[in-house]
Amino acid sequence: MSGKVRIALDAMGGDHGPAVVVAGAEVALARHPNSEFLFFGNAGLISPLLQGRPVLQAVSRILHTEVAVRMEDKPSQALRYGRWKSSMWLAIEAVKKGEADVALSAGNTGALMAMAKFELKTLPGIDRPAIAALWPTLRGESVVLDVGASIGADAEHLVDLAAMGAAMARITLGIDRPSVGLLNIGVEEAKGLEQVREAGRVLREEQLPGLDYRGFVEGNDIGKGTVDVVVTEGFAGNIALKTAEGTARQIAEYLKGAMSRTLSARIGYLFARSAFQQLRELMDPRKSNGGVFLGLNGIVIKSHGGADAEGFAAAIDLGHDVVRDQLLGKITAALSRPSRPTPRQVFGGAAS
Amino acid sequence: MSGKVRIALDAMGGDHGPAVVVAGAEVALARHPNSEFLFFGNAGLISPLLQGRPVLQAVSRILHTEVAVRMEDKPSQALRYGRWKSSMWLAIEAVKKGEADVALSAGNTGALMAMAKFELKTLPGIDRPAIAALWPTLRGESVVLDVGASIGADAEHLVDLAAMGAAMARITLGIDRPSVGLLNIGVEEAKGLEQVREAGRVLREEQLPGLDYRGFVEGNDIGKGTVDVVVTEGFAGNIALKTAEGTARQIAEYLKGAMSRTLSARIGYLFARSAFQQLRELMDPRKSNGGVFLGLNGIVIKSHGGADAEGFAAAIDLGHDVVRDQLLGKITAALSRPSRPTPRQVFGGAAS
Repeated sequence: MSGKVRIALDAMGGDHGPAVVVAGAEVALARHPNSEFLFFGNAGLISPLLQGRPVLQAVSRILHTEVAVRMEDKPSQALRYGRWKSSMWLAIEAVKKGEADVALSAGNTGALMAMAKFELKTLPGIDRPAIAALWPTLRGESVVLDVGASIGADAEHLVDLAAMGAAMARITLGIDRPSVGLLNIGVEEAKGLEQVREAGRVLREEQLPGLDYRGFVEGNDIGKGTVDVVVTEGFAGNIALKTAEGTARQIAEYLKGAMSRTLSARIGYLFARSAFQQLRELMDPRKSNGGVFLGLNGIVIKSHGGADAEGFAAAIDLGHDVVRDQLLGKITAALSRPSRPTPRQVFGGAAS
Repeated sequence: MSGKVRIALDAMGGDHGPAVVVAGAEVALARHPNSEFLFFGNAGLISPLLQGRPVLQAVSRILHTEVAVRMEDKPSQALRYGRWKSSMWLAIEAVKKGEADVALSAGNTGALMAMAKFELKTLPGIDRPAIAALWPTLRGESVVLDVGASIGADAEHLVDLAAMGAAMARITLGIDRPSVGLLNIGVEEAKGLEQVREAGRVLREEQLPGLDYRGFVEGNDIGKGTVDVVVTEGFAGNIALKTAEGTARQIAEYLKGAMSRTLSARIGYLFARSAFQQLRELMDPRKSNGGVFLGLNGIVIKSHGGADAEGFAAAIDLGHDVVRDQLLGKITAALSRPSRPTPRQVFGGAAS
């Protein structure tokens, strides 16, 4: 890594494309001056944005391509026309070739995962990569995974998620031996899906190093911060994440309505303005932007498609942290537990 | 029904037992004077509570039993010692015998579902009953089901849930042809679980009467109120429900902290007190208390175990509504669609 963190950016991804990606890089660079950026995408659009930012420009290179994956493409479509040449593909390829330490995109999640799998391949023993999110809680932050990549999961996959999630919590939350819970629909051992019960048994009996397994947790435990790492398969995980986002937005709307309805409330709002500002910051989804793809031979981070520059910068910050703290090496070590079944044939070529 | 709505109450269920059940019945009776109550449980505890409430006492009967299902019992345990004689069982039995129109319990959900299935049996063609909840949204309320009874679901079950949920929305929300969405992790047709996709195909092609199928919805659509009925299997549904509860509590804590931190914020709070009161009411989980068991030959309602009298009364109100509007008849009609496979052997005797 030579002291520098080299970040490959898909400049064409997301709802706003280069405008947000370049502006976000500028914000992140101010916080992490040892960053270097590779911008993949349309040079005609990126170059003028860099020219107005000399500090950023000095640590950036543009790699031109005219092909960009669209938000609405299916993964198979995106692979068909975007392989070898799209900005998304080329950003991932830079990681594979060792030209970058991490790749980021705010583009189409399915396409990004398909390309990352295809190009980087999964780690030994891992069939299916996962997406991990940092979730703000009453105690700080927790790692929640999988939030949308692997739909359905057997016990082995859930145990892998626990190991990978704990490695990520050690780095992003700075906790030596993070507490881990399996998301379930009841805390009694008897409830819930067979696979979840079986994963619970394995985690209890094997006592994996570097994590403290605490049993089942329920949906309301996520916001409480009951455990540092919440493990679930991607369908329920994605629904939990989106439901929490929806609930937060719903309450913000209620609050806005209530505080503007009467004169007295509006006066109260003025007095409490700084408190509301603080609340807004606590609830700011931009701060926890960035889903980390785990289980691949390389680090890829997905930013929310609708992120603004501040949000995209938060995803870059996250990329910086995981590279600096060598997430990939730690995950590889965490996965090489003795009881693991012999590595399976890992990449099935799902997309082609 | 003879103009009266006869309500069987498991007086021993929930964290607070008879104190909350009797007080809740009093609150509900004031709103629905045509109610009659059967209290099942320990007469020594229930009778003194009724004596202080002559209006309630006049429309109530106590049916004594000393057996009560405990909150921590597994369903199989509860069935073993609670069958034929527990307050929970007897309340359900009253519905079966036609002595009550609806049964309510704040007790152990798993035991209540097991006993309800055992005693009432499922409707023709339904293997697995579901639990439906009313979910407060930015547009009002939506019906969300299943929130925890049937873990995993094939396409046929999801279509049944859509039909039953729409029948419930017609009654509880007063909407003639409710809009229905399938909970999924992406709005594109290609994403998500195979069963969810297949159910989407069936709902699109069959055009069931009395519902307007709108396609897939995501977790954040629930709070928005994008559709009147959100359909999912019970694992994801329970996690969504609990995650939303947890997020609401988390934001309430943030708000409380922010509004008490500075003098200026505390003054602002005083001015805006009525606005905060309004917000608290909008967010009050007691108002949407009550999960309706659907798919059985009889109506059973589960109240939150921690509900207070106001919360338990809301569950009774819900029971009153669904009885008055003949939910059971409407569900039976909704399920008898022409394309349905021939009724299967319905009750497998899972618990014994």
